[in-house]
Amino acid sequence: MSQYEIRFSGSGGQGLILAGVIFAEAAAIYDGISSVQSQSYGPEARGGASKSEVIISDKKIQFPKATSIDICLALTQEAANKYYKDIKSTGILLVDEDFVRETPKGDFRVIKLPIVKTASEEIGKAFVANIVATGAITALANMVTYASVEKAVLSRVPKGTEDMNKRALKAGYDLAKAVM
Amino acid sequence: MSQYEIRFSGSGGQGLILAGVIFAEAAAIYDGISSVQSQSYGPEARGGASKSEVIISDKKIQFPKATSIDICLALTQEAANKYYKDIKSTGILLVDEDFVRETPKGDFRVIKLPIVKTASEEIGKAFVANIVATGAITALANMVTYASVEKAVLSRVPKGTEDMNKRALKAGYDLAKAVM
Repeated sequence: MSQYEIRFSGSGGQGLILAGVIFAEAAAIYDGISSVQSQSYGPEARGGASKSEVIISDKKIQFPKATSIDICLALTQEAANKYYKDIKSTGILLVDEDFVRETPKGDFRVIKLPIVKTASEEIGKAFVANIVATGAITALANMVTYASVEKAVLSRVPKGTEDMNKRALKAGYDLAKAVM
Repeated sequence: MSQYEIRFSGSGGQGLILAGVIFAEAAAIYDGISSVQSQSYGPEARGGASKSEVIISDKKIQFPKATSIDICLALTQEAANKYYKDIKSTGILLVDEDFVRETPKGDFRVIKLPIVKTASEEIGKAFVANIVATGAITALANMVTYASVEKAVLSRVPKGTEDMNKRALKAGYDLAKAVM
């Protein structure tokens, strides 16, 4: 596979670092594939959009900066506008269909899913949108097993929220499977 | 300053990623200094020791991998043994004095502080050891203002724990100031 790069973007407070950490730990701790999870903060860090990134690789990761994105999640319009640019030509821009109305154009596939709506209406808590998105990316990337991502979710979410997060992960996975 | 590198190490569950994120956000969002926060997971990721890293720089960070550590925190013996090796010769190995009994030898300064004990006895919760450590590192690094780190702490900790975390940060800062 060489190297696979995922970017999670949206607004601060949507749990995008946690989503990245979960995916990286699923890959490395449970599936034995090296990963690096990072957030870069430049002069634009004060803005409302934020991102986190994961690189997974079957080789040692020499340069731990995402430069050729396979999947870019965008949960807000501002994040989509700001962070879609490094998607590679065979890559995917995964957007929230309610919050990203104007999809950036480019030489990549666009997938629109009701991520936040599923979190708030099906699971009952908008703040699990990050886990719904993680489920969708698990299906789309097909790089890390679903069982490993579920284990990583359960090891990282607050006690007492495990069942809700399991359902959120499954709901996101099913959303993406339905459009693949 | 060029580039400054901090490694937070200990055992999984000690909140080391959060400490790294807080420090990186203090630098970038509140002090306007570019930063990268990352965790690398290699084949050793299943072990009990874990780490997170922050690089801060007044220039754009080209290679976001810590290779020449200015401060390495180690909250456990296993983490100290595993992660001290990249400390540079003018750097600091900051260890918990109760949990790291055999300090690795090298061409760097060693500072021993009762980080976990301060968290559990002075603040009343061992799990704020990461914030006590962040306070100590704020003093030792002197790269980011105390006010910025405090803002970053308050924006990232769970609602209702703000006061406890403020006290933890101050306690760690004071511990380090007393030995500088």
